[in-house]
Order: sequence, then structure tokens, then C-alpha cells
Amino acid sequence: MRVHVVGLGLVGSSVALGLRGRGASVSGEDLDPDRATRALELGVVERLGGVEDADLAVVATPASAVVATARRLLGSAGPGQRLVVTDVAGVKGPIASGLVHPRFVPGHPMAGSEQEGPDGADPDLFVGAAWVLTPTAGTDEEAFSVVREAVATLGADVVVLEAERHDELVAVVSHVPHLTSATLMSLAAESPVDREALLHLAAGGFRDMTRVAAGSSAIWPDICRDNAGAIVPVLDRLIGRLGEVRRIVAERDRAALVALLESAGAARRNLPARGARPPETSELRLVVPDRPGVLAEVTSIAGGLGVNIYDIEIAHSTEGPRGVLVLVVTESSAASLASALRQGGFKVAVSAGAPARSAP
Amino acid sequence: MRVHVVGLGLVGSSVALGLRGRGASVSGEDLDPDRATRALELGVVERLGGVEDADLAVVATPASAVVATARRLLGSAGPGQRLVVTDVAGVKGPIASGLVHPRFVPGHPMAGSEQEGPDGADPDLFVGAAWVLTPTAGTDEEAFSVVREAVATLGADVVVLEAERHDELVAVVSHVPHLTSATLMSLAAESPVDREALLHLAAGGFRDMTRVAAGSSAIWPDICRDNAGAIVPVLDRLIGRLGEVRRIVAERDRAALVALLESAGAARRNLPARGARPPETSELRLVVPDRPGVLAEVTSIAGGLGVNIYDIEIAHSTEGPRGVLVLVVTESSAASLASALRQGGFKVAVSAGAPARSAP
Repeated sequence: MRVHVVGLGLVGSSVALGLRGRGASVSGEDLDPDRATRALELGVVERLGGVEDADLAVVATPASAVVATARRLLGSAGPGQRLVVTDVAGVKGPIASGLVHPRFVPGHPMAGSEQEGPDGADPDLFVGAAWVLTPTAGTDEEAFSVVREAVATLGADVVVLEAERHDELVAVVSHVPHLTSATLMSLAAESPVDREALLHLAAGGFRDMTRVAAGSSAIWPDICRDNAGAIVPVLDRLIGRLGEVRRIVAERDRAALVALLESAGAARRNLPARGARPPETSELRLVVPDRPGVLAEVTSIAGGLGVNIYDIEIAHSTEGPRGVLVLVVTESSAASLASALRQGGFKVAVSAGAPARSAP
Repeated sequence: MRVHVVGLGLVGSSVALGLRGRGASVSGEDLDPDRATRALELGVVERLGGVEDADLAVVATPASAVVATARRLLGSAGPGQRLVVTDVAGVKGPIASGLVHPRFVPGHPMAGSEQEGPDGADPDLFVGAAWVLTPTAGTDEEAFSVVREAVATLGADVVVLEAERHDELVAVVSHVPHLTSATLMSLAAESPVDREALLHLAAGGFRDMTRVAAGSSAIWPDICRDNAGAIVPVLDRLIGRLGEVRRIVAERDRAALVALLESAGAARRNLPARGARPPETSELRLVVPDRPGVLAEVTSIAGGLGVNIYDIEIAHSTEGPRGVLVLVVTESSAASLASALRQGGFKVAVSAGAPARSAP
């Protein structure tokens, strides 16, 4: 396969390097000549230019430039060149409606890093990540297959969605949570209570909730501009829900509070399920100190018994400096593992039939 | 020191066991005779009853029973017995105003676990945790010193606050974040977009933000009832702030968005480390087969190098019997761990900065 990548930032360069490393012939271009030269020097691409020979072009420019770039590429394809074009922008609605073409298959890999440009390129950036494609009824089936194959080659899992659904979905699981994290953090930092004391008391749960706010903020203004159409209604829903929570707390409506917390808890415990999971599982919860080697002790005990761990998570305590290690194993092996862990000095709680954690 | 603990649940039993193990003579009582007997059997307390000899009584009942219990204890103190009373309830305003007495020093240890009762008692539960004390101008200095000394003996850090400030503070850093986490999770679970796709796309940032929602919900109805007076105004502030964020996004007010994200990021990066997580982390992603022992191999390699794993997660693949194991370690140890894992036959991708997991 011959692939041409337009825009050699982190994602474009990682696509290029990943496909090169897996047997494709890859060319590229970038508006910034220094970045293009750097990508060539590093072997991220084999040559600059080369779209005229390509089977697949990947547009990895800013979202605002995708439609014009994709249109140019499709328009420049020679007679007999069955060029397929895809993109990697984080918003899909405006792009999918801005260019309807049988050989344009919009996409969005759900992976990133804080590295930048060709120097940050990682051929395995997409391994295990979800990669959304938004074909329409008019999409050429062969074109879709070309993109799907490239995505699979990079080790990502294809998720097919309508473009508008994609935009709402990322607003719900990424953009609005990020904005909420920043809002909670600023609320705490500007609180009238003593700031030192407040930060001293902020424990694991608060740290978990505000962790994303510590990341680089550089990409967010563009994301919020491009996806404002989906973010605003989701923010409205969140604000409405929090108003309902306020009523529940103010009126001491215990039943409604329990219902909210239990349904949210069940949904969250269901999150890690992403496929390979046996039907009957149990969940073990252990209090673990935060020190090197403790995970090895726990997992070695499981390995020694031949017990496969289907899921593992460190739940940092809401209050206090220690964590709870959550292990999901088959129901039939839970008792023997718990017993072995207790002999190893761990305190273990077992909940049978791990509350609806298996895929629905 | 002679200590008497009233209420032998997890916190009371852990206080008892922790002080016994550090040289105190500890008696106890519980309304539930089975629980009291169990605490005695386990050696959590030396004897039942015994407040008449105590220097310090720790009230570890539900918050609603603290004032009456503390008043009873102070009233029953014999002539010449200089009994000091403290409590461990998560709300302090109503308790501090409900019983003003020079020898009553309200307190709140910021630690917990999901274990229950005397069987879950952990003498080190409070090591490294913050423990709030709320003395007033009328508090006897000697009484305050007795409580402070007991807290220090348990390994916790004393934080002195006014009772009302404590309540607002825990609303800001614990109660409202917890309610927000549950609200975000339920918003996602009930989203009109395809639930399977949504959960498939939920990446590290969303998982972090909703992790506390997966914990036991049993304690939260009481917390929300007891601290409603502080939680409601903080929820109002959060809702107001999110309304402002909505305006910023809707109006594409780039300058205001950048200001919010940058100030929140700076505040989050300034959170003092409390052992839970170092400021600079890297994320390692490994493709792992789904078989017993593989986690032990990976974590033993980390343990052998003295590398502490701060977070671990298995992202199961939708196709085929493999998963991606995500490890979060300090940035300085990432390269050596990745290299050792590669020597062990694993394919490893490293990305700097754990916040990169929130795929935009």
C-alpha cells in the first residue's frame, strides 16, 4: 500500500511511521518546510510529495483545513488513480457534511500524547485505541475497506458511528469532563477557605478528578471551537443534572440520592469491560500500600495459582493516601485467590458476581 | 495513656488497634453486642467498658449520635478524672456548635477503606493522612494537646481548622467532586448515543474522573445529609461556574477559555504530593495475551527494578484474545522499565505525561 500523509504533526507522523514499520510505502507533506525536512531526516516518511502514486491519503491538518485539503487531494487524483482520503480530526460533523464524496471516509483516532511533531512520532501510538470512522450511505465500500485495513494495521479498533453521534459522544466522554475537571480545580483553588489546608486535604478522589486539568491546555481552545455545537447542549444537560442533585441534597431525598449513586456506580464498574471476559466473575478488593513491588506480590500469587486476572484497577481512595486494588477473576477461582492473598498478609473483600461488570 | 473508644466500626476499631499497638491501654463499647464481642476476641480492645478510667474517649459513632454521646461521656466523668473527648465524624459544624465544652475537641481523620467493622481494623489506616481538629477559643489547651498527641501517635498530620471551614472544605475537595463524578457517569450511561460505542471510547481521562463513582455508595447518603448545609452552596458555585464555561464555549471566547484552563492547570500541578502520584509520570502501553501469569511477569519486572506502578489498567481488545496493559510510572523510570519489558519479549509504547490518556 502507498500512503500519503498531509500534515506531519504528532498524529500524522505517528500514522506515517506506524504504516511504514508495517510494510507500507509512505510519503508526506507539510506546510512548514522545516517540519517536512525533519520528518524525512527521521525516516518518518520516505519522501516528500508523492500523492500522485498514493492509494490512501491521510489528512492530519488542523480540523479547519481538512475539508479544503481533502477536496484538493481528491480533485488532483489522476485518471485511474483510485485515491481514498481520510482524516484524523477530533470533530466530525462539520467535516462529514462539508465534503460528501464516495472516496472520503472521515475518521478520528482516540489516541494522543503530549509529544509534538515528527520527533514525537510513535509507531505504536494507536495500538489498542479506538479509531472512529464515519462513513455514510454514499461511501464507496472499497474506499471504506482501504481505510479500515490501514486502521487495523496500526493496531487500533475500528468503531463506526454517524458523524454527529461521534461529536456528541466525545463531548460526553472527553470534552465536557475535561471542562468540568478544570472547573472543579479552579473552584477549589479560589475557595475562600484556607488554600494550604484545602490542598493538604485534597485526597485521591479529588486528584483523580482533576488529573486531566494538569495536562497541556494547548489543544483545547481549538477542540472547544470546533465542537462547540455538541459541547454546549451536553454542558446544558450536566448543569441541569447538577441542579437536580442540588435539590436531592437540599431536601435530604435519600432514595433519589441512593438511586443516583448506585446507577452511576454500576455503570462505572461496567466500563472496563471491553470484550474478552468470562460470564461469571467475582471482584476482589484489597487495600494496598503505595510502594514498589506490591503489585508483583499480588499478581504473582494469582499467577502461581493459575488464576487469570481479567481486569485490574487501582482505585485511589477518596480520602487518604492509599489505594484499593480491584481484581476481576472467574467466580470459581475467587475463593482460592482470596485465601492465598490473605495468607500473604493482604486484607481482601470479595464480591461475588462482580456487579454487572460483564458486557451487556 | 488510657483510651476508650465508643463505636467499634472500621474507624473506631482502627483507632483502637493503632493506639494499642503503640502502647496505649484501650477499652471500648458498641451498641451492637456481637460487634463488641468480636472486637474483644480480635484484640482490637483489651476490655469492654472502662470509660471511668480513661484519659481520652474517642466517639466513633454515626455523626448524628456524636453530640449526645460526647455529652454523656463528659457528664459521667468522675471527680478528678480529667477526661478529654474527641470524635471522628465527617461533618464538624453541627457537632462543634451542638456541644461547646472545654474538654471536647471535635476531629475528622481523612482516611477510610472499604473494609468494615473490627475485622477490617487496620492500625496503620491513618499513617500519612490529614486529621482535622476544630478547637475553639474556649478549648482547654491541655485537652487539645491530649488529642493532638493521640493523632500524631497514629501517624496522621494534624490540620487545625474552624468547624465551618472544615465542612466547606470537604464539600469542595470531596463531597461535590464525588457527586459530580456520579453525575458525569450517569450522563454518559444514559446518553442517547450508542452506549456500547460510548463506553468503548471512554479513555483515561473519563476513567479517572468517574473512578470514585465506582466505590461503595453506602457512606454517601449520611455524608450528604450531615453536610448538606455546606454542599448546597458549593454545588451552586459549581453550577454557576459551569454556566460561565457554557457561555465561553458558545461564544468561542478563546481568551477566557485559555485563562480558565491555564489557571486550573497551574493549580492542579501545584497540589502538594501526598504519596499518591508524582508530578511527572509516563504511560507505558503493552500488548498482552489474556492468560494467567502475564501480569505477574510484567509487575515482577517493575518490582525487580524498584519501579512503583502508580496506576494500572487493562484495556481489553474487542477482537481476539489480547488486551493492552496500561501502566503509569514516574517519567524518570519509564525508559528503564520499557527497556526491561522489551527484553522480556513485550512490545511497549511509552508516552510522556499521564494526562495524555484523555484522548481529545
